[in-house]
Amino acid sequence: MSILIKGAIVVTQNEKREMARNDVLVVDNRIEEVAKGINEKAEYVIDAKGRILMPGLINMHTHVAMTLFRGYGEGLPLARWLEEKIWPIEAKQTPKDARIAAMLAIVEMLRGGTTAFCDQCLLGAKEIGQAANEIGIRAHVSQGLFDLLPGRDFEGESIAMERAAYPQDRLVSYGIGPHSPYTCSDKMLSKAGTFAKKQKRKLHMHVSETRKETFDVLKDHNKRPFEYLDSLGLVNQDSIFAHASWVTKKEIAIAGAKKLNVVTCPASNLKLATGGICPVFEYEEAGANVCIGTDSAASNNSLNMFESMKLTALLQKHRYWKADIISAQKVLDFATINGAKALDMGKHAGMIKKGALADLVVLDHGANLTPGLDHISNIVYAAHPGNVSHVIVDGKPIIMDCRFVGFDEPALLDRAEELAVEMMKR
Amino acid sequence: MSILIKGAIVVTQNEKREMARNDVLVVDNRIEEVAKGINEKAEYVIDAKGRILMPGLINMHTHVAMTLFRGYGEGLPLARWLEEKIWPIEAKQTPKDARIAAMLAIVEMLRGGTTAFCDQCLLGAKEIGQAANEIGIRAHVSQGLFDLLPGRDFEGESIAMERAAYPQDRLVSYGIGPHSPYTCSDKMLSKAGTFAKKQKRKLHMHVSETRKETFDVLKDHNKRPFEYLDSLGLVNQDSIFAHASWVTKKEIAIAGAKKLNVVTCPASNLKLATGGICPVFEYEEAGANVCIGTDSAASNNSLNMFESMKLTALLQKHRYWKADIISAQKVLDFATINGAKALDMGKHAGMIKKGALADLVVLDHGANLTPGLDHISNIVYAAHPGNVSHVIVDGKPIIMDCRFVGFDEPALLDRAEELAVEMMKR
Repeated sequence: MSILIKGAIVVTQNEKREMARNDVLVVDNRIEEVAKGINEKAEYVIDAKGRILMPGLINMHTHVAMTLFRGYGEGLPLARWLEEKIWPIEAKQTPKDARIAAMLAIVEMLRGGTTAFCDQCLLGAKEIGQAANEIGIRAHVSQGLFDLLPGRDFEGESIAMERAAYPQDRLVSYGIGPHSPYTCSDKMLSKAGTFAKKQKRKLHMHVSETRKETFDVLKDHNKRPFEYLDSLGLVNQDSIFAHASWVTKKEIAIAGAKKLNVVTCPASNLKLATGGICPVFEYEEAGANVCIGTDSAASNNSLNMFESMKLTALLQKHRYWKADIISAQKVLDFATINGAKALDMGKHAGMIKKGALADLVVLDHGANLTPGLDHISNIVYAAHPGNVSHVIVDGKPIIMDCRFVGFDEPALLDRAEELAVEMMKR
Repeated sequence: MSILIKGAIVVTQNEKREMARNDVLVVDNRIEEVAKGINEKAEYVIDAKGRILMPGLINMHTHVAMTLFRGYGEGLPLARWLEEKIWPIEAKQTPKDARIAAMLAIVEMLRGGTTAFCDQCLLGAKEIGQAANEIGIRAHVSQGLFDLLPGRDFEGESIAMERAAYPQDRLVSYGIGPHSPYTCSDKMLSKAGTFAKKQKRKLHMHVSETRKETFDVLKDHNKRPFEYLDSLGLVNQDSIFAHASWVTKKEIAIAGAKKLNVVTCPASNLKLATGGICPVFEYEEAGANVCIGTDSAASNNSLNMFESMKLTALLQKHRYWKADIISAQKVLDFATINGAKALDMGKHAGMIKKGALADLVVLDHGANLTPGLDHISNIVYAAHPGNVSHVIVDGKPIIMDCRFVGFDEPALLDRAEELAVEMMKR
């Protein structure tokens, strides 16, 4: 397979963050060349003159199996929303349902320029992986683990670990997902940490999303969450902490020193009124690897990474009362190269550079991206999924000229709609 | 002219906020009928089965002439951004430039489902009106007025009042735009207020956007901004106050008692790090008419009303630490019927109901709007401009199947791009 993209403004995200009008040749699943006037024959040629070519966005925290709950129980306060709506319906979900929900999420993400995602699920890890392979998106999936949440079903420790040890393929990898320090015992957390180290798998968990949970952890363990998790050996380069909003300066320093992957989910935090704004500026300064996630369609309610980039930037400016606290370039880094690093995407991860994996997005230049005085600012502050015209994942054309290649999107939407209605009646 | 829209899920925004699958017939510039199985012959028939038909969004505060400055001076602190970048380039702008900038903004807004906007400009009021008529969008334009900002050019009081008295046509109306209580003397503010009353025109100004300005007004006038403006007779149903973020409970009560039109611009406030979150929940409770605006592409940097609706809701939840403080329905009201009321759009303003002006938007059902368990929540929290397939303004088809009707959008984008580059060299 080869794809030649002609004449785009290439936002390389390389070490120098270079940007220039160039051609890009993709051979198999990697970028073969970035240069002017490439004349190789290619199976697909994309005329991208005047358009932007950028690395695919990486959604570092989501729950794709929840996509069918978009808008369900809207307007309820948080506790009632969870207890009366989300948990009961989740309990009735099957792995087959999770597959359809995942496919819906994947279609939405691809249409929004997202080429990889990091998921935590209650069940259906295998089905989510199958959905990713079927449509064509890079996925990291962790089966969620709990042992301190009475009345909530989960598949259990041994099954979660079995899932986490699934063989990886080109697009899909698996990790271990202890849900959070307040829903897992120290024994379970330690086991998960040891397993991750031994099996060389990622550990993906929720940490310090709400103010209350940080005090609960402090009460139970006499340590703040990051200190507690660090004492169990869980703060390291292979751990991914989502939310991480309610933290002390000491906890930020720990995250930085251990080069932790920290994922801010600004839309979800605001929507659930958690009150915290993840201090990504301070994490970044401290040395942590800051990434961005949408969280699920049940709590966001979209999987739009352009929106989450913009929100990440806006909330830092708001939090620190400083309009120049963070650059658009830095935020784009969070959503591309930092995500790629967190997921170990190899050489030149998240860049458009010879040898890097070919996960690419073309943005058409609409009125909202005009003028192109500052393409990075346009991507972060003005772009939306409607600008995405082409998506390439692992060197394969997934969306070409706004249409899925070889995948029946309308049929999926109909199936998802029917299934959601049917689930509500169970 | 007649248009028949078949089989859509009609979000009527009528008094009962009804929603049902219906046909909608538009004759001339008004809605003629909302019913099942309408079989009238119509010049245009839109098959909208499975899609959403909603009233057009109303962007109640923007500066369309600034659209060519999108991304210009990005990353500078606020004062330097204004003094070194925006003000010098604005000083070099001509009314002809303002027309192109306005056309670019109008195209972006229409593509994002916005069918009316309320603008304040430094110059080019007439040209902005012409642009609105040429492409087809409803516009309210006020010429800005200053007399306390040394070193900044403006066209002067008499010219601004002449502009405000321009004859109104079907799409375009004019008002008076004293910039703010800290850039206008009390004499000028009083004159503007008297003029507005006499001429039956709207008064559109910036109020309490930053914390500093509220203290400056307090120091100079011994009153907080709303109290001060109220003492000058400027707080009433025909005034439109943009931002209105840094206010006391007493000021909110004044706004409510006088049924003031208050416009929150959440993206711009966050981006400029003003620190304030407009307490729309309290304004609404007090009885004010709450609306939503994007502010300009220079400070937002998009004119995306879907995004501004979502941000409005999210920021209330965040500000009050209460996930159910405001409903999606209420936020949609702000962006439709409340804007229509502020702009005096007449009978059933902002609703889909026999007799109302036909400003309509069709949303295609994409993955991000699936499932349709709660269409209002989907519109506010999950929709984006890429979902907009059809736009009708004043009964005319402006965008059909994602294409402008009889307007050369690509040529405009090229012209705008060239002009922006040329302006930067002046």
